[in-house]
Amino acid sequence: MAIYSDTISFSTQGNTDVIDITPQIEAKLSKLALRDGFVVIHALGSTGAVTTCEYEPGLVRDLEDIFDRLIPADGYEHNETWGDANGHSHLRASLVGPSITVTFKNKKLRLGTWQQVVFIDFDTHARQREVAVQFVGEQ
Amino acid sequence: MAIYSDTISFSTQGNTDVIDITPQIEAKLSKLALRDGFVVIHALGSTGAVTTCEYEPGLVRDLEDIFDRLIPADGYEHNETWGDANGHSHLRASLVGPSITVTFKNKKLRLGTWQQVVFIDFDTHARQREVAVQFVGEQ
Amino acid sequence: MAIYSDTISFSTQGNTDVIDITPQIEAKLSKLALRDGFVVIHALGSTGAVTTCEYEPGLVRDLEDIFDRLIPADGYEHNETWGDANGHSHLRASLVGPSITVTFKNKKLRLGTWQQVVFIDFDTHARQREVAVQFVGEQ
Repeated sequence: MAIYSDTISFSTQGNTDVIDITPQIEAKLSKLALRDGFVVIHALGSTGAVTTCEYEPGLVRDLEDIFDRLIPADGYEHNETWGDANGHSHLRASLVGPSITVTFKNKKLRLGTWQQVVFIDFDTHARQREVAVQFVGEQ
Repeated sequence: MAIYSDTISFSTQGNTDVIDITPQIEAKLSKLALRDGFVVIHALGSTGAVTTCEYEPGLVRDLEDIFDRLIPADGYEHNETWGDANGHSHLRASLVGPSITVTFKNKKLRLGTWQQVVFIDFDTHARQREVAVQFVGEQ
Repeated sequence: MAIYSDTISFSTQGNTDVIDITPQIEAKLSKLALRDGFVVIHALGSTGAVTTCEYEPGLVRDLEDIFDRLIPADGYEHNETWGDANGHSHLRASLVGPSITVTFKNKKLRLGTWQQVVFIDFDTHARQREVAVQFVGEQ
């Protein structure tokens, strides 16, 4: 068994921007000498989260709406601590969680047909983001 | 160290049907030549999720109720995209998350006494479901 | 590659007590002969959860508030099953999830600058808690 640690990076618009990172993960996997194993995918930072969804425009908007409803954008003590306005971003990220682990077989991620790995940027501004990916497996 | 990839399958009724998949995972583990390690458990599909809970009938009904309250069953753009009615199923699944990782020691899953691994089917109809399980460890 | 299974333990006050367990995990990692790999962190018990957040007092209070709002502390069937009062504790824990996996490189956890690994005790009383940690990697 072998371990390959890497990082994927991309730009986001923030405000519950949902980014499909499946193609980047598959591209990394295709270049490795691993056939069967798993990949740990972990958000670096406390205002972004990793999960899966069917990546289609209607559902992406639904995700934005549901988080605005569940954890609205104002009224948090965190905002007074730092004088910023992203308390809701932190809370949403902690609720969804920072990491998932996806297995692969014959060099293919095991996901449902309509299931993509997504990073959700809950922060309040556009930025460059990094996600840790670590592939573990055997040839 | 060795890796064993497998699938468990079972039927569900949908509509936040909570299925205790711990016995199936333990049965797979008992047949493997692994003593210490971990198992990645990953829902295949974007309307189901994996988590843990105390699997007792009252709490199973409470889970149904709380998701109906937090993410009600209508009013999503996804439903207009596809002409179906499971936008809420997708949102609930993304919120809970598709995967967990549980360690094992001496061939026993390390869980609390009242803690079971569950698959929650948030989709709107009965169906056959598959969950990827991958055992990694050493003898 | 090698696997080291361990447990961290600590006392909590319950009622959405958020505990920063990063220092304990880093202390364990520093003593192991592992350079690159990952650590699985898994709550033992069904009323606690593991996630990440920026660990600062304002946000810790915001986490308490948001869970009180999303999943209030009364009105669950679980409470009638057992005659206790922690149905909300179970529901919150299942929603957040029991486990995360964090990678490490050169013996350092790969986390954002303002990102800590936290255990949240959603139960209703003070107690001693245990979290399973399993380090997997290579020298």
